[in-house]
Amino acid sequence: MIPQAPPTLEELLQQSQAACDALSEDDDGLKREILTHAGNRWSLAVVHALGVHGTLRHAQIARQLDGVTQRMLTRTLRQLERDGLIARHDHDEVPPRVDYQLTALGRGLLAGMVPLWRWVIDNAAGFRDARAQFDRSAP
Amino acid sequence: MIPQAPPTLEELLQQSQAACDALSEDDDGLKREILTHAGNRWSLAVVHALGVHGTLRHAQIARQLDGVTQRMLTRTLRQLERDGLIARHDHDEVPPRVDYQLTALGRGLLAGMVPLWRWVIDNAAGFRDARAQFDRSAP
Repeated sequence: MIPQAPPTLEELLQQSQAACDALSEDDDGLKREILTHAGNRWSLAVVHALGVHGTLRHAQIARQLDGVTQRMLTRTLRQLERDGLIARHDHDEVPPRVDYQLTALGRGLLAGMVPLWRWVIDNAAGFRDARAQFDRSAP
Repeated sequence: MIPQAPPTLEELLQQSQAACDALSEDDDGLKREILTHAGNRWSLAVVHALGVHGTLRHAQIARQLDGVTQRMLTRTLRQLERDGLIARHDHDEVPPRVDYQLTALGRGLLAGMVPLWRWVIDNAAGFRDARAQFDRSAP
């Protein structure tokens, strides 16, 4: 199966070339790390939940994320906070009250991810067919 | 730091809500898996290299991917092939000649990822600042 190039491929490649150049000048690996984090399902789920609800506590986020472990959630929240995508607010109360919100960067991630989500959803049947075919023919 | 909502947040959230609904109806986990694969740095690098060069053999791809191990590359190529993003072509020659190309789905991934790459690159300074601040204040 030799695919034919759509008319926009050249434009796309100019853009992705620029992106790859920038990524390969990425001495400390930060941009690649952010990209990897951004593809993580729990990161996306947290960013989405905060986008919808505005402000949430740890336990409220946990309830929004079906199947997440306590350990994964804590790790995800710390990573998102460290990357500046969410802001953690400790109200200094007893008992402790800590909540989370999206930052401007976090809303940017949401904006960047939505087209990719849509593409995955729109092409789910194609992925499923490809896998079925691969699994039938694989040794 | 309480961020202010930009005017487009509601539209964004409608879209991401639709996306999240579709992702949570994802009984076999396929859509979430594709998203996770799509965020993988080696997957992106392979998709980009094939986008730029059209057709590449295994060894040629390896040369384009700075720092990839043989094992990771083999795994990445199989995963991309299984998901229908690249097509593997065995020329049935001796010595063996096998090469890879993007499929239409693979070009779609490139199109979906480019805006996200740009966003990461444009905001690298913001991520770096956030991390420095976090690392200074973290216990």
